[in-house]
Amino acid sequence: MPPSNAILTVTLNAALDVTYQVPNVRPHHSNRVVAVTTRAGGKGLNVARVAARLGRPAVATGLIGGSTGAALRRELTESRPTRLLDALQTIGAETRRTVAVVDPVAADTTVFNEPGPTVAPGEWADFQAHFGRLLADCGAVVLSGSVPPGLPLDAYAALTAQARAAGRPVLLDTSAPWLLPGLAAGPDVVKPNADELREATGLTDPLDAARALLALGAGAVVASLGPGGLLAVTPHGSWRAVPPEPLTGNPTGAGDSAAAALALGLLDGSPWPGHLAQAVALSAATVRSPLAGDYDEATYRALLPHVRVTRL
Amino acid sequence: MPPSNAILTVTLNAALDVTYQVPNVRPHHSNRVVAVTTRAGGKGLNVARVAARLGRPAVATGLIGGSTGAALRRELTESRPTRLLDALQTIGAETRRTVAVVDPVAADTTVFNEPGPTVAPGEWADFQAHFGRLLADCGAVVLSGSVPPGLPLDAYAALTAQARAAGRPVLLDTSAPWLLPGLAAGPDVVKPNADELREATGLTDPLDAARALLALGAGAVVASLGPGGLLAVTPHGSWRAVPPEPLTGNPTGAGDSAAAALALGLLDGSPWPGHLAQAVALSAATVRSPLAGDYDEATYRALLPHVRVTRL
Repeated sequence: MPPSNAILTVTLNAALDVTYQVPNVRPHHSNRVVAVTTRAGGKGLNVARVAARLGRPAVATGLIGGSTGAALRRELTESRPTRLLDALQTIGAETRRTVAVVDPVAADTTVFNEPGPTVAPGEWADFQAHFGRLLADCGAVVLSGSVPPGLPLDAYAALTAQARAAGRPVLLDTSAPWLLPGLAAGPDVVKPNADELREATGLTDPLDAARALLALGAGAVVASLGPGGLLAVTPHGSWRAVPPEPLTGNPTGAGDSAAAALALGLLDGSPWPGHLAQAVALSAATVRSPLAGDYDEATYRALLPHVRVTRL
Repeated sequence: MPPSNAILTVTLNAALDVTYQVPNVRPHHSNRVVAVTTRAGGKGLNVARVAARLGRPAVATGLIGGSTGAALRRELTESRPTRLLDALQTIGAETRRTVAVVDPVAADTTVFNEPGPTVAPGEWADFQAHFGRLLADCGAVVLSGSVPPGLPLDAYAALTAQARAAGRPVLLDTSAPWLLPGLAAGPDVVKPNADELREATGLTDPLDAARALLALGAGAVVASLGPGGLLAVTPHGSWRAVPPEPLTGNPTGAGDSAAAALALGLLDGSPWPGHLAQAVALSAATVRSPLAGDYDEATYRALLPHVRVTRL
């Protein structure tokens, strides 16, 4: 039986993303919040939402707990696109929140990220067993974001090894403390941004840094360079993929949309230039959407034919 | 049977006060929160905590709801001093949160206040009945803070009238939108700060403004002027009470501590100069405590004999 064509996304440090609308924020004072919105958050949930909106079945797993975890699950149930399956696992500790203070007058956002819940050793073992069962029905795996306290630093190496043993390709999108230990297990693609690339390697040139990660075990490196598009270094060649013009808007989730496109490329085994172009267009279309885990359909369609992909 | 000597505090718009420790806050960026603490909040709860710490029985009532309300009640149960009775009433809507971002490096705090829950008409009627029952066993009433959506603007006038009909003196500590309608019912003392005084009257001179509130129905006006101490305008005379030196620290809750001291003065019927001095010393001792609803005992004892009370 061939593997399913579903994407399995993992969000170990899920969060309830809270947005405060505060016109004319006054630092060092009391500020009245005029509107509060909450959304199930964490990079893997954004990837799953975007994959589902692209028409692919997506299974979202990870860890949630406490009343904040329950609120996260409720929001996901109420808002989720069809084709997104909630396979989040419950832990004892309370899910964290993030608070984004959006000032619509200054057109600016400041984000505060709470530390994650502490996961118990037995909960991690339970999660690995749960992940193993989910692998059977999924075609590719995306591991996203930070690792909460209580889990081993090489948690992503363990999940990557499990997925590869099951024959499933893995995209790993995390920052330096968890990226480096994860590389040892040979994820098919890693997707650092410019800061993460520099922090993980100490190298300032993105091409040098990407080659260094390849040497450490990554199957391919796709670096997101913000408005500069993507840089891909793979065993089949290296490319730059650049949007026709820089777009302004809300960059939150742009990298997660790129990860969704790249994971679908892994799943389909399509050639790199095509799915790099999709990743750039989707990422830019996400900047034009007010919500992470969503994208502006018209922008996506308009940009896709105009992304420039250059072989290096 | 004489009335009990307990203080009854009312917090209609209670909040779960969340504090984020964020060294070197970077506006317009993502910030890592290094520690999260939560505390049952709202001005009336601070008053009740301080009264209880001063050795007086205090009954805290008000409205809480949802999982945030449950978290508030849990924190109050775990932290409350002896002599504080939880008489909060449950509503359907979710209690609000406040988020204080404390930067220990810059020694500065920015606060974000969520809007309150919407209270249903039946819940307000239930609360008034509950308040009526609590009045029987209390000697004085403190009405503090904002009024949540769904309640009439003159909610404090209704509670003041109820308390006065039961023969209980009332201290009202709220800002302009609820202070002005509340005056009509003749609260014994109102305790605006300098901003509230100006907003309620349009007058910039605190003495003129306090006299205007007296004319509108207040039995006495005690204005808190921050480091400048208190200004009291009463039918028995007017006083300024000033701390011996300005103290630096966390001003949150300083006004609530002053309200607690003034309410105890109302209860005991003690002369104004004495309880104004207590209010100033307690307020200053609260600035030296890291928590609202608490005060530094040594500072309180040291300052009390040195507060200057001047008859105007």
